[in-house]
Amino acid sequence: MYTFESLRLQYKPKIPNQLKHLLGLQAKPVYCPEKIPTELKTLFPKSYNFPLIEFEFTDVKKKFPLKVGVVFSGGPAPGGNNVLAGIFDAIKKFQPNSQLIGFLDGPDGLLKRKTRNIFQEDIAQIKNLGGFDFLSTGRGKIETIEQKEVALKIVEDLSLDGLIIIGGDDSNTNAAALAEFFLEKGCKTKVIGVPKTIDGDLKNQYIEISFGFDTASKTYAHTIGSLLKDALSQKKYYFFVKLMGRSASHIALECALATHPTYTLISEEIKEEKQNLRDVVVLLSDIICHRAKENKNYGLFLIPEGSIEFFNDVQTLIREINNYPKENLTQVIKNHLSKEAKTLFEDLPQEIQKQFLLERDPHGNVQVTKIETERLILELVQKELKKRKEEGSYQGSFSPQAIFLGYEGRSAMPSNFDANYCYALGLTAALLIKHGLTGYMAGITHLNEPVEAWTPIGLPLISMMGFENRQGKEKAVIKKALVDLKGAAFDLYKEWRLKWAYEDHFQFPPPIQFFGPHEFSDQLPLTLKLDAMKTNEYRYVM
Amino acid sequence: MYTFESLRLQYKPKIPNQLKHLLGLQAKPVYCPEKIPTELKTLFPKSYNFPLIEFEFTDVKKKFPLKVGVVFSGGPAPGGNNVLAGIFDAIKKFQPNSQLIGFLDGPDGLLKRKTRNIFQEDIAQIKNLGGFDFLSTGRGKIETIEQKEVALKIVEDLSLDGLIIIGGDDSNTNAAALAEFFLEKGCKTKVIGVPKTIDGDLKNQYIEISFGFDTASKTYAHTIGSLLKDALSQKKYYFFVKLMGRSASHIALECALATHPTYTLISEEIKEEKQNLRDVVVLLSDIICHRAKENKNYGLFLIPEGSIEFFNDVQTLIREINNYPKENLTQVIKNHLSKEAKTLFEDLPQEIQKQFLLERDPHGNVQVTKIETERLILELVQKELKKRKEEGSYQGSFSPQAIFLGYEGRSAMPSNFDANYCYALGLTAALLIKHGLTGYMAGITHLNEPVEAWTPIGLPLISMMGFENRQGKEKAVIKKALVDLKGAAFDLYKEWRLKWAYEDHFQFPPPIQFFGPHEFSDQLPLTLKLDAMKTNEYRYVM
Repeated sequence: MYTFESLRLQYKPKIPNQLKHLLGLQAKPVYCPEKIPTELKTLFPKSYNFPLIEFEFTDVKKKFPLKVGVVFSGGPAPGGNNVLAGIFDAIKKFQPNSQLIGFLDGPDGLLKRKTRNIFQEDIAQIKNLGGFDFLSTGRGKIETIEQKEVALKIVEDLSLDGLIIIGGDDSNTNAAALAEFFLEKGCKTKVIGVPKTIDGDLKNQYIEISFGFDTASKTYAHTIGSLLKDALSQKKYYFFVKLMGRSASHIALECALATHPTYTLISEEIKEEKQNLRDVVVLLSDIICHRAKENKNYGLFLIPEGSIEFFNDVQTLIREINNYPKENLTQVIKNHLSKEAKTLFEDLPQEIQKQFLLERDPHGNVQVTKIETERLILELVQKELKKRKEEGSYQGSFSPQAIFLGYEGRSAMPSNFDANYCYALGLTAALLIKHGLTGYMAGITHLNEPVEAWTPIGLPLISMMGFENRQGKEKAVIKKALVDLKGAAFDLYKEWRLKWAYEDHFQFPPPIQFFGPHEFSDQLPLTLKLDAMKTNEYRYVM
Repeated sequence: MYTFESLRLQYKPKIPNQLKHLLGLQAKPVYCPEKIPTELKTLFPKSYNFPLIEFEFTDVKKKFPLKVGVVFSGGPAPGGNNVLAGIFDAIKKFQPNSQLIGFLDGPDGLLKRKTRNIFQEDIAQIKNLGGFDFLSTGRGKIETIEQKEVALKIVEDLSLDGLIIIGGDDSNTNAAALAEFFLEKGCKTKVIGVPKTIDGDLKNQYIEISFGFDTASKTYAHTIGSLLKDALSQKKYYFFVKLMGRSASHIALECALATHPTYTLISEEIKEEKQNLRDVVVLLSDIICHRAKENKNYGLFLIPEGSIEFFNDVQTLIREINNYPKENLTQVIKNHLSKEAKTLFEDLPQEIQKQFLLERDPHGNVQVTKIETERLILELVQKELKKRKEEGSYQGSFSPQAIFLGYEGRSAMPSNFDANYCYALGLTAALLIKHGLTGYMAGITHLNEPVEAWTPIGLPLISMMGFENRQGKEKAVIKKALVDLKGAAFDLYKEWRLKWAYEDHFQFPPPIQFFGPHEFSDQLPLTLKLDAMKTNEYRYVM
């Protein structure tokens, strides 16, 4: 059957000029990009002072085979297959006898030595397609000393020159530790990370964006645009749309800039301003009342998945509930909660109360990701509006709909941008291994320029690390990049949002296009474009 | 700002050859397509014996101006703007002084004489874009004699030559009655219907599909494909996806054929086989258990929005509950429900029980569309699996997710197919008015052939009518087309579904493409293709 997938397999990712002649490239250490805290030196004595790597052309063309292992880690993101394609094509160019070995089912599969040799025919069947189904993935970790020992034994048994870990912040934190561990043990296997996450929270001055963010946010933005069009068409519904994206609000901000919905919550701002859930309920209700006066009883609110854990009052409630085992909680609530926490709890819809009480993670903590924030906020707003209606301060009609956008964005067919970006990341990851580098993240800079000008780099994983309190302990981790409240993207949103709230400035992005005019089929994420602009420029964008 | 919408405005809908030379076309009565029941003759003495209309070329080119009114009726569907564009371009070709007047906010707006003159500049801003926001729509009706009198006065005041009603089965039923009424009153205004509904339930041998169905089902099928890819990638989730589409399961069947999910409920079959909710819960649980044995703890079920009202046991429960006012229902359930109904009710999750008890429509009936069927079935399956696990007959893991796909499909940017189809429908509607025809639906046949060969027709609205029991009364209505359980599309699905349930045959349709290879950017709905095939052909399609 001739499917769109078969058509898509024929797409040839665009290749940056610097990566067109892989054999002549030489790694060029540049400088240590960040000041490394002393504590990190102690933890990573072998790898703490690695330099940033760029590449330059030379006449020397060294050809030798590489044996490389690769593993997907964590949730899927569009473009993973193209990372595999890039690695494969690069090592085969280094020497046709090179081998690529995929570990199945994520880090757990690596530890169980579940492998699959990857051949040209495989790559030809998966290139430019979405999903992590070719190797499958998992949320396992290689973290403890025992796990690292098992991994060491396996990579040595397989005689791997390199191990490429395609994952998010946690997976790359573990990649850094594994690289250090292999160095200590004199193991030849180089460990390279590739920045994967639709959440967009793995980025910094060198890693401009993680792969998958573009496709996922474009997928959501298209749906949001259609919902906005629907809201306008019948002038009847308020959509409360929760967006996947964990703690950070990058996806919400990107979608807000792409669609100009009625209002968008930004978790980082909620935290910074110490907002209570109640404040947001009042804010949204105010917007609804204001619009009702102009006979606009419709709209759309964007709610980041992680927002629930940033509300000041919710944090207090969760902290207090976490103090008690989940048995007898009804008694606890009656007798032990503070007045503030108790008031909030009693204000919650029954179903949500249950979610607070019943779902606990393995550490016994309330599982905030399981709380249906979009329904929670919807119901509280509904209650507030009912009250206002009784008081006579609101006369509108309110038909709300709760919607969650998530899974469909993680495994969608990658946009041309993600297809190109991932292929270049794969080539770069292989290059880093060829040059004997370990403890690096493969990166591509200058993404805001045409693909030809994209520039491969190796960024020391250590340079991305800092200390975070995790379950009561200070731990060295790759810092999650949150929305920069002083950055161009948020600044622009903040400037416009009240206009968007009261007037209608809805935008309707198309479904992802793989063909047609370049400016649409190859468009970058807006936040990426904005972040690359100087302050004075971005004010004229919208 | 140069948006994708501005690009899309430049798309020129393809025009059927027969509609390329509008001025020379003459209406040609063919024959009365259906035997009309005597009762309809009594109800529609003026219009019961209208013939089917085709068009033929002549040398006569009559030019005269038309004044036409147009109204959207009911929920939005992609392509509505192109119907307006077609009408506009046609009447301007008939004579440049022709006028198009839009009624705002649906039939209610017509009755309130809320109008807007439509100009070339308007059409240039809305062509090929989704949504009914240009005129807005509403669920009002023109049904009672008083309403018809008001409508009559307004179309006479405005001196309209024609009134075009863009709507579904109910709206076109009312269009037929309005046409008859205008004839009785000697009013010159011709009433023409245009078949609009994403649900796909307005079709017959002449109306091959309603507009909007293609875009909506492609929008959903793309999302479903991405969810299937996600299910495969992490091998962890079962998605329970409810699809918009009211009583009929056309959208579910179309999406099933496009994506080959684990299993798809078809309401018409549930009804035909007198299945209980319990039967379906057992069936889905059996599939899950079977797959778990092969370590496949993931999958996706499609659930048509309307399925809930077709389960035999749910029908009994609803019927019994409808007998009592919503006050004191707890008592009713204890004391008055039959054993069967009571058992079912007590088996339901608490939230769903509430939905059965609390939501009533204006006639006091349980509002089945408000029941979250996807969550209901999910929770009952979860309960069943828990029981089986305790009994030892099931060892799998079960992580379910409930998802509803609906509003985003109704107002999406129309596919090339819907853009072309709607434009041709608009041209045809105007032609019918030009030829003094009333009580007709504008139609295009031969949709399965290239656009050039599409053929405009006028189908007498009466020929689509039959009698249905509505709130205890026999009423003449345009029959809702349900999924034909003897048709090619269902037959094919039935043949494959167990294979799809146990093995994985997932398909991953792309987001709607407006550019690129013709076979993808201009693809027809699969059910339309299948229905056009002869029995022997369609078995070789999949």
